Amino acid sequence: MVLNAFNMLTWSVRRCILSPRSAPMKSMRGSRGLCSKAPNDGLDRVRTLLQLCADRYFISPGESNAELFRRGWSCIYGPLGLELRRNLLQQWWHSVTRSRARVFGVNTPSSSLERGAGGVRVVESEHFQQILDQSELSREQLIQELNRLLLSSPSVRTSLLQGALEQFVPSLEMVSKKLPFGLAETGLCFQPSGVSGCFVEVTQTSLVWFCSPRTSSQWLDHWVRHRLKWWRKFALSPSDFSSIEVPENELEETESRGVKILYNFPWGLESLETLWCRGDTDLLQTYKGVRTKWQSRGGQKSVPNVVSVSGNIDRGMLAFLSNSLQELRGEDGKKKLQQRKVLKLHPVLAPVKVALDIGKGATVELRQVCEGLLQEFLEAKISAWPGYLETQPTSLQHLNAKYDEMGVLFTVLISENTLESGLLQVRNRDTTIRETMHISEIKNFLSKYISAADKFS
Amino acid sequence: MVLNAFNMLTWSVRRCILSPRSAPMKSMRGSRGLCSKAPNDGLDRVRTLLQLCADRYFISPGESNAELFRRGWSCIYGPLGLELRRNLLQQWWHSVTRSRARVFGVNTPSSSLERGAGGVRVVESEHFQQILDQSELSREQLIQELNRLLLSSPSVRTSLLQGALEQFVPSLEMVSKKLPFGLAETGLCFQPSGVSGCFVEVTQTSLVWFCSPRTSSQWLDHWVRHRLKWWRKFALSPSDFSSIEVPENELEETESRGVKILYNFPWGLESLETLWCRGDTDLLQTYKGVRTKWQSRGGQKSVPNVVSVSGNIDRGMLAFLSNSLQELRGEDGKKKLQQRKVLKLHPVLAPVKVALDIGKGATVELRQVCEGLLQEFLEAKISAWPGYLETQPTSLQHLNAKYDEMGVLFTVLISENTLESGLLQVRNRDTTIRETMHISEIKNFLSKYISAADKFS
Repeated sequence: MVLNAFNMLTWSVRRCILSPRSAPMKSMRGSRGLCSKAPNDGLDRVRTLLQLCADRYFISPGESNAELFRRGWSCIYGPLGLELRRNLLQQWWHSVTRSRARVFGVNTPSSSLERGAGGVRVVESEHFQQILDQSELSREQLIQELNRLLLSSPSVRTSLLQGALEQFVPSLEMVSKKLPFGLAETGLCFQPSGVSGCFVEVTQTSLVWFCSPRTSSQWLDHWVRHRLKWWRKFALSPSDFSSIEVPENELEETESRGVKILYNFPWGLESLETLWCRGDTDLLQTYKGVRTKWQSRGGQKSVPNVVSVSGNIDRGMLAFLSNSLQELRGEDGKKKLQQRKVLKLHPVLAPVKVALDIGKGATVELRQVCEGLLQEFLEAKISAWPGYLETQPTSLQHLNAKYDEMGVLFTVLISENTLESGLLQVRNRDTTIRETMHISEIKNFLSKYISAADKFS
Repeated sequence: MVLNAFNMLTWSVRRCILSPRSAPMKSMRGSRGLCSKAPNDGLDRVRTLLQLCADRYFISPGESNAELFRRGWSCIYGPLGLELRRNLLQQWWHSVTRSRARVFGVNTPSSSLERGAGGVRVVESEHFQQILDQSELSREQLIQELNRLLLSSPSVRTSLLQGALEQFVPSLEMVSKKLPFGLAETGLCFQPSGVSGCFVEVTQTSLVWFCSPRTSSQWLDHWVRHRLKWWRKFALSPSDFSSIEVPENELEETESRGVKILYNFPWGLESLETLWCRGDTDLLQTYKGVRTKWQSRGGQKSVPNVVSVSGNIDRGMLAFLSNSLQELRGEDGKKKLQQRKVLKLHPVLAPVKVALDIGKGATVELRQVCEGLLQEFLEAKISAWPGYLETQPTSLQHLNAKYDEMGVLFTVLISENTLESGLLQVRNRDTTIRETMHISEIKNFLSKYISAADKFS
């Protein structure tokens, strides 16, 4: 199903939905020698990845959904995709808001009445229909009424920047009117898809950093290092994540510098996060030049500058999925499974930390043990998969293959033996080694493993 | 600023935005004898609460923002409001998805092309304008073109129900086609505000539970108990949260039972979460009667029934803020502060767990100690407030009053003494007792306090 979709995919689509300027990066690709990549390999790899994501509950099956997903747009996520995205968003949030004392979170509505003309508007169709149905209105009156409706309808945001700019003045008291400080937000944005009248949803991450003009370039460097380090922290192949300075001739008037964090997808480089030195124009426009409103303390007379960091978490998720997929050949002892696919997601990101399954034995009793253990895991906030609910008999090999594709860190097997001795088998995704462990130890073992991975990654 | 807004508030507005049926609950109020509440007391209390929320960075200041907030609609949240909402959403998510093995999370887009006519639509205004500008079109052609545009524009969701229903069939494989199971989601919905053409955003929580027809009523009871217990778990006055069966004559055709979880706001009862036994109509409509698509295993021939649980997290947040605000008179030893307001938010929900401040002494050194300690807290995921950045001198009394209003659990005071002996002062919000503690102990003390509160609440 998903495979068919790929014949239809136009691989040349490299539009970045975050910014029109992050479009085809031919110069970057050329300069980095990425053209040497065998194109068919890349195509196969993407096909495999998307099929796996649909089969293993990362995304809901269907051609159009897989295509949304591949383009880095919000799509219908299944439980595993949702959990991975939650983990990623949480890590982003912690890393940005807890990196410094002076980063504060805000939340602004996704639609607003005060964003001027143009843009994407939310219209109540009944109200719209009522105007169209007024037969007494002349053509001109009709147009006038519809224009009025459009202007009075809220417009939805295409990025989180404006919301943060509007919170600059209300936040000044909180920081004793001292620079620098930052406002962080994550949320839904609507962006044109390229096809006229069509929109896509993206989940943006945004940090808007306010600082003095003379420090803005240093702050940009600081945040580039910070962000790149963060992306690489969770990667299996950190070198696939890189940063690149935006060439001067591609900068807009209001920008003095720009840097992109890129990921090397099988179909080429795409930007995950974009950082700009935006100068003072945005603030001046937002506050219409009323300087007293944002005059910061300490006699500084210059207008604060803005450094913006905005990312696309859906594309980030695709990057980590792509980065962590390993295809291993002939690994299996009996050579029955010729190819083993493992999603080696970082332990912190892995949506399922442990799967619970039953081997041969008295099914009812074994299930009860599983139920109890699952509850214990969930209470300890260890995300667990109830594999024991599956009623179709499968071989252990197939089970392992399935969990490897789901990126499950550990598989716990409860068997007859567990009922007698309390011992169970634990299989590690990355080493494929099976260990025997007492049932009373497993929860602490997993908790320690995950928190160690969190701390030392 | 916020105070003025209150003169404009129409206190009779008790429309529930979650469902038209959760509107004025006169019968319920009467039967519960709530009319005995002195109206002025309630008004004062709301005024105080909203002023506090704007002053203490829960919401962005401004009359219209406070009004959105009071009505339980998404508004502009400051860092404290954002953190409280995050904590609340996370607790909801854990409690619902981790309560049973058979609840899975999903994420569906907020807009869709496939939701028929009517509703709230997202329209690109440039495209719209282009049609209006086509002078060659006659009045009729214009109307035809505009109708086509409207029908081809994506409609935004008003609730999360439909998205979950559409994920019923794709989820069947995951649960081995066995009932019962549930799909959980939280997300943005757009709802009419009551004023023609105006919309508000709400953040909904939703659990859609699929079960056999004969068990649906028991499942409703199960989820009512589960939800009420959850709300009360974090409450200072649990009795303000209650549940009530929707009278039979208020049920719609497709519903066999309904229960609301209510909160007793100073202005009356409002519903926080609504549970319905919805029968099989929704599934039949979604799948247009194609039974084979959802036929579950085990030869059951009946159509699965739907029990829906949907809530409004913004209103839930307001309920907890209202519930936890204590106004204490003449508590202070010196009677300088006649009234002490404390936001006794549950430790798990409190947006700031610890505030860091400096007493008298060498400012530069004391700040360095604070910076180090703050970093330690943030790394341990203890949300901390950098009070030491405040440059205006304030008395300890005022500082305590401020943190009490922010609901900060502990205030740590670093002073000259800390530099000499490593000892600092820790003040507990709820007991107001000050303890002396060594700087090396504070992080573990806080971690233990919070996790104990999480476990034993």
